[in-house]
This record gives sequence, C-alpha cells and structure tokens, in this order.
Amino acid sequence: MTQQQPAEFTESKRGISAHLEAEVRQRMSDFAEAFKSMNINKIMSFYADDVVAFDMTPPLQFVGKASYRKSWEKMMPMMKSTDLFEMQDVKIHVNGDLAFVHCLSHMIGTTSDNQSIDSWVRYTGGFRKINGAWMIVHEQISVPVDMETNKALMDLKPEPTAIH
Amino acid sequence: MTQQQPAEFTESKRGISAHLEAEVRQRMSDFAEAFKSMNINKIMSFYADDVVAFDMTPPLQFVGKASYRKSWEKMMPMMKSTDLFEMQDVKIHVNGDLAFVHCLSHMIGTTSDNQSIDSWVRYTGGFRKINGAWMIVHEQISVPVDMETNKALMDLKPEPTAIH
Repeated sequence: MTQQQPAEFTESKRGISAHLEAEVRQRMSDFAEAFKSMNINKIMSFYADDVVAFDMTPPLQFVGKASYRKSWEKMMPMMKSTDLFEMQDVKIHVNGDLAFVHCLSHMIGTTSDNQSIDSWVRYTGGFRKINGAWMIVHEQISVPVDMETNKALMDLKPEPTAIH
Repeated sequence: MTQQQPAEFTESKRGISAHLEAEVRQRMSDFAEAFKSMNINKIMSFYADDVVAFDMTPPLQFVGKASYRKSWEKMMPMMKSTDLFEMQDVKIHVNGDLAFVHCLSHMIGTTSDNQSIDSWVRYTGGFRKINGAWMIVHEQISVPVDMETNKALMDLKPEPTAIH
C-alpha cells in the first residue's frame, strides 16, 4: 500500500501554508510601518517577552524584551526621520506556529545631526504564533565586514541575484 | 464541547518536539566537527541547494550552494588550524520539518600567516528536513558594529546573561 497522501490533502496543506505565509508577510509589513513611525511602543509590540536579538550594535546579544528596548531607546533619538524602509528578496519559511524569514532591508533617512543615511542590511527574523499573533522571538541584523580593514560595509548594494 | 487536547496528546506532542530538537542539536554538533576538520565537501553537505547565506564577508548575500561554496573556498586557505569551535547559548525552535536556531559561536585558531584568532560571532540558522536530513536553507553570521568608528567588533565576549 502506498503511503502517499491524496491530491486534495496536499492541495489543502499547500493552501494552509500559503495562508500562514501571507499572515507573516502582513506582520512584516506592519513592522515596517511601525519602524517608519519611529514609535517605540508600537515597535516593541512585535517582540515576544523572551526575544533574543543580535542587533547592529553591541553587545553580542540582547536577552529579553526589556533589555532590547533599551537599545531601541538609545538608537531612535539618533534618527531625525526615516524616509524609506523597504524589504527586498523576502523569503518566508513557515510551519504551523513557527516561521523564519530573511530579507535585505533598505533604509533611507536623516540622522539627528543631519547626516543622510542610505543603507542596506541583512535581516533574519524568527517568529512564533503566540495567542494568535506572530511575535518576533529572535532576530539578527548585520552588514558584512571587510576583513582587510575590519570596517563594517555600510554602503553595499544588492547584486542582481534576486531570489524568486 | 471543549476543543482541548487530552493530556496524553500534549505529552506525545512534547515528546516529538524534544526528539526533533535533539536531531537538530546533533546536526549542529556534526557541523561543528565538519568545520573543525576544514573539509569543504563535508561542510557543504550540510547546505540545501537553494541556501541563502548572509556571511561575515561580502556580498550582502550568497544565493545558492554553488555561490556560497566559493566563499568557503576563499576563506578556508586563510586558516591554518581551527583549535576550538564551540557554540554557547544555543536555542532551537522546531516544528515538524522546519527549525531555526541561534547561538554564540566561539572560534580559536591560527591564520595561514600565523595570526591568532579568538573570536565570538552570532549565528542564526534556518533548517528544513529534506529527504530525512536537516539541511541548512539559510544562515546569518555577524558581529556588531561600533557606530562611532564603523569598526566590526571582532573581540567582544559574551556577557553573563546566558540563555536558559
């Protein structure tokens, strides 16, 4: 006897997966809006209490929402405005109440001392559906390093190798 | 009628989850062994064909195993030996055939021009079970940046905020 699932089962599974993927995509889009608004309470509402974050700035990791919030509170006053915050090459992996995503994130803005920023960073996020909402339980944000000079490469642009 | 699952179902679900977590943990441990052996074929056998990697070095992303292999082939000859490769604060999230992990990774070694390396990096990995094996479909590896000097902070040590 074959163990293969009937076609309608596979179709239904695929439908659920596409539905969950759309939920996570919407959540990321809502996060981008919160980021642009620079409202820390709104931004923090996306994080689980036990989030572990590997941020652009030290230390190596922030453990817990209260600790991570302090990093956001330090960073936000350094920005005057965020004019663009877009995600490219977004890939979403989802199964049941677990998901992880990765993308390249493009920010254009102005710092509080009137410097222009136009930067691409790599973003990986881990999500869990908790009480019906997709919460960020982990994230890592970074740029690559020039190993000769030890400089962080803040001005790299994506190559034309878009993910389909 | 209550929709709650009977206790034995919950227990069984927890058992499956612990079993899958152990599988992923073993896979990470096997990867660490492959890394220490500096055998590129062994290392590459952990990656899915369509892996997307955000590595320490540019470009922003490597799309596909063939492209990522080139980065490993460039990096490996720069190392003479890897004396220690350990993961700390390992957290594994798993559901069915999907998992993501994060940890702090500690490497001690010697470069081909006899420089000592003793470095901590942040590691996030996304796994999918493909044909019975947990394959890395995504990873991001980085260190934080000193925003004043734009230097990559290669000599940070973990703070005593270990994850339990």
